[in-house]
Amino acid sequence: MASNLILALNSGSSSLKITLYARRDDYQDDHGVDLLLTASLSNISAPPAKFTFETHSGSKEVNRSEEVDSVYDHATAFAHFLDCLENDAGLDKGRIVYICHRVVHGGDYAEPVIIDEESYEKIEHLSDLAPLHNGAALSVIKACIEKLPNAKSIAYFDTIFHRPIPVHIASCAIDQSIAGPKGLKKYGFHGLSYAFVLRAVSKFLKQPPENLNLIVLHLGSGASACAIKHGRSLDTSMGLTPLNGLPGATRSGAIDPSLIFHYTNRAGRITHDPSFAAHVGVTEAEDILNRRSGWKSLTGTTDFGEISKKAELDNPDPSIASRNPNRLAFDLFLDRILNYVGSYHLKLEGKVDALVFAGGIGERGTELRQMIADKVQCLGYESLDKDLNTNVAKSSEDVVAISTCGTQVDVDGGGRKKRIIVCHTDEQYEMANNCALNKSRW
Amino acid sequence: MASNLILALNSGSSSLKITLYARRDDYQDDHGVDLLLTASLSNISAPPAKFTFETHSGSKEVNRSEEVDSVYDHATAFAHFLDCLENDAGLDKGRIVYICHRVVHGGDYAEPVIIDEESYEKIEHLSDLAPLHNGAALSVIKACIEKLPNAKSIAYFDTIFHRPIPVHIASCAIDQSIAGPKGLKKYGFHGLSYAFVLRAVSKFLKQPPENLNLIVLHLGSGASACAIKHGRSLDTSMGLTPLNGLPGATRSGAIDPSLIFHYTNRAGRITHDPSFAAHVGVTEAEDILNRRSGWKSLTGTTDFGEISKKAELDNPDPSIASRNPNRLAFDLFLDRILNYVGSYHLKLEGKVDALVFAGGIGERGTELRQMIADKVQCLGYESLDKDLNTNVAKSSEDVVAISTCGTQVDVDGGGRKKRIIVCHTDEQYEMANNCALNKSRW
Repeated sequence: MASNLILALNSGSSSLKITLYARRDDYQDDHGVDLLLTASLSNISAPPAKFTFETHSGSKEVNRSEEVDSVYDHATAFAHFLDCLENDAGLDKGRIVYICHRVVHGGDYAEPVIIDEESYEKIEHLSDLAPLHNGAALSVIKACIEKLPNAKSIAYFDTIFHRPIPVHIASCAIDQSIAGPKGLKKYGFHGLSYAFVLRAVSKFLKQPPENLNLIVLHLGSGASACAIKHGRSLDTSMGLTPLNGLPGATRSGAIDPSLIFHYTNRAGRITHDPSFAAHVGVTEAEDILNRRSGWKSLTGTTDFGEISKKAELDNPDPSIASRNPNRLAFDLFLDRILNYVGSYHLKLEGKVDALVFAGGIGERGTELRQMIADKVQCLGYESLDKDLNTNVAKSSEDVVAISTCGTQVDVDGGGRKKRIIVCHTDEQYEMANNCALNKSRW
Repeated sequence: MASNLILALNSGSSSLKITLYARRDDYQDDHGVDLLLTASLSNISAPPAKFTFETHSGSKEVNRSEEVDSVYDHATAFAHFLDCLENDAGLDKGRIVYICHRVVHGGDYAEPVIIDEESYEKIEHLSDLAPLHNGAALSVIKACIEKLPNAKSIAYFDTIFHRPIPVHIASCAIDQSIAGPKGLKKYGFHGLSYAFVLRAVSKFLKQPPENLNLIVLHLGSGASACAIKHGRSLDTSMGLTPLNGLPGATRSGAIDPSLIFHYTNRAGRITHDPSFAAHVGVTEAEDILNRRSGWKSLTGTTDFGEISKKAELDNPDPSIASRNPNRLAFDLFLDRILNYVGSYHLKLEGKVDALVFAGGIGERGTELRQMIADKVQCLGYESLDKDLNTNVAKSSEDVVAISTCGTQVDVDGGGRKKRIIVCHTDEQYEMANNCALNKSRW
C-alpha cells in the first residue's frame, strides 16, 4: 500500500482529537484529502479516559467507544490510538507521511513549520502564553517523533490567520519597550477554524475570499469572534492568550484586568497543578480564569445545550437572570457575543456579506442563533428562516444559509445582502488539506 | 451674609478641583445654584503644586495662577484653598453649609450619603477598588471635617448612575460564591458626568430623560463610554474599577487579563509607593496598568491634543502607526472607542437619539470627533457640520449639536434622527445643583 496518509492531531488540555486522511493523487475542487477515520480521547487528565474510534473508508470497519485505563497523559493517549490503528483497523502506521499538529500559539510564525529542534523549542517557549494547549500539543509531538520517526510533523498555528490584524488593533496601551521584546499584543486564536470557514463560505457564495467581509462567531467551549475584511482578519476577540474576549466553558473571557487581584491575594503565585499537560509557569490567576470560571462556574456544567434548556428562555421577566444561573449564563454569553457583532459590523463599515456561526454551540445552538439574529435585524441582516435554523444540525453540507435568502446563493450585483450562515468547521481537515495541497513545501 | 454656600470638591490622585456655589432662594429651570468661584490644585504629589483661583461673582475679584510650596498632599491643598478664600476673596468659610465630594467608587450605594463614621468607613473599605481616587477623596473629606466642622459633607458616587445596568451585563463569568460576597462585578464610573449629560441633552432636545437613548463618550485622561436606554444606564465600559474599558492618559484600559503576568512576575506584590494618596493595598499590576500605561506610555505625553497634532492624521499610509507612536496612540484610541459605539448602537437596537461627546478630549478633540462621525455614518448618524465641529469649544452653551441637523432641536415624530452632540459636562455643578434641589434630604 502507498505511503500517503496524513494524520491531523488536535490536542486540548485534557483531550486529543485525531483524524486520518488519505492524500488524493488528483485534486478536485481543492480537496486534497479523503477522510479515513476519526478518533478521540477525552478526560485524559481525569482517568479513566474515554476513547472513540470510527473508520469511514479505506480500512476494516471499526466503531468503538469505551473507557481505557492505560491512558493517563497525551503520550499514552497517542500510543493507545496507534495500537488500535494497527491491530483493529489493520492500517500500517508506517504509511503515515505527514502529521499535522494544531498548535494554538504560534507567536510570530507566519506559516506552518516543520518540527525540528529549533521550532520545537520556540513552541515550548510559547507555552506560557497558551498553557492549556501548547503544552499538550508538545507532548503529542514528542510522542509522534518517537513512535513515527519517518513521518514529518508540521505545526499549524491558530495565530497565523490573524497576522494581518493592523498594529493599532493588535497593540495594547502599555509600555512598548516591554511589550515589544516580550511580544505582548493581540495574537488571536481559532485561526484554523476561521481559515476553514472563509474558504467554505467563499465557495458557497461563489466569491473569492478577497471579496468577502464576514463576521464569524466560533462558539464552542472556547469561543471567539472574528471580523474578516477582504478575506483577511481585521480583528478578533481573543488576545495575547485565548483567555480574552468571550467567556467559555471554563474561561472567564474579558474582565476588568484588576479583578483577579480582588478575587484572590495569590493571583501572581505559580501553581504546580499536575493536571497541566506541561510544566509551564501558570499563575494562580491564569488557572482560575482559564479553568475555574466560565459558565461551568456559573451553572455547574460545561454543556451549553443543557444551560439553554434550563434557562427559561420563554420567561420575559427581567429579573429571572438574578434567580436562574442558567439564564444568567445564557444572557451573559449572548450580551458579550452581541458586543463583538456590533463592534465588527461598524469596523466593517456595515459592509458585511454574512454573519457566520461555527463551533459546537454555533452549530447546535438554535435558540442562541435565533436571539442573535433577532437583535441584528436592526443592522440590516436577513431574518432567520425558522425551519432552516432548526434543522441545520442535520445537514451534511459544510455551509448552510439559515436566513430568509438562504437558498439563494449568488451574490447580487448591488447592495450586499447580509446573510446568516452556519458553517460546520473542521480544523483537522483544514490542516490535512493544506498539507496535501502544499506538498511541495514539505 | 447668609449661610448659603455649597462647595463641590473633585479629587483626583494628584489633583483637587474646587467650585463654590451660592444656593438660589428661588429655582428657575431646575437651576439651584449660581457659580461664585473655581479653584484647582494639580501636581499635588509631585511638588511644587500648581494652584489656580478665579472668582466669577459674589466676592472680590481674584484671578491667581501660581506654584505653591506649602502643598504636599490633599489636606494641605485644601487648607491652601481655604486660606485664599478668606484672605484674598474675602469670603467667610463659615457660610459654607454643604460640601459635596465626588467619590468615584460607591460600591452598592444607591444614593448620595451624608458622611458620618459609618459611611466614612464604607468609603474607606472601597478604596481598594479605586485606589487612585477614593483615597484622595477621603483625605479631603477628613480635612473638611476638621476645618469646616459645621458644614455637612455629602458623598456623591460615580457608581450610582450605573445601578440600573442589568445583572447579566454587570456580572462576570466567574465563581459567584466568591464574586457575590466580594462584590466583583461591573460598577461603572463617570456617573456624575453622565447624569449631567443626560439632564442637559434632555433639556436641549426637549424630551424627558426617560424618552432618550444615548451613546455618551466621556473622553478625558480617564475615558469611558455609556449606553443610556430610556434615560437609564444600560452598559458602560469601565468595570469593577476605572481600569477597564477605554485606555486613558496613564491607564491601559481593557487588556487580556493574563497579560500583566507576562509583563512582570511581580504582578501580585503589594506596592508601597508613597505617592498613593491613601495607604491602600495596591498591587504592582494595578499600579502599572493604572499609572504607567495608557498613551503616556506610548508617546511620553498625557496631552491628547499634542498626540493628535503629531499623529500625521493626513497620512493615509497604513504602516504609519508602526513608525509614529502618536499615530499608534491615536488610532488605538479611535479603534477602542468605535468598538463601544458599535456595541452600544446594537445594544440600543439602532434606536439612538444622539451620540454625545463629553470630557476634555470629547470637547476639544476636533479630529477625533470628525473621524468617529465619518465612521458611524454607515449606522445612520448625521454627518458633521465642519464649522460647528471646529468651533464648538468656543461655545458657552452646555450642549451644542455638531451634526448637520444641529440647529434643529425639536425631535421629529417618526424615525429618530441620530444627532451628534458635544456636551460641556460639569461634575461639580451636578453635585452642587443636586444638593440644592434636594435640600430637604440633608
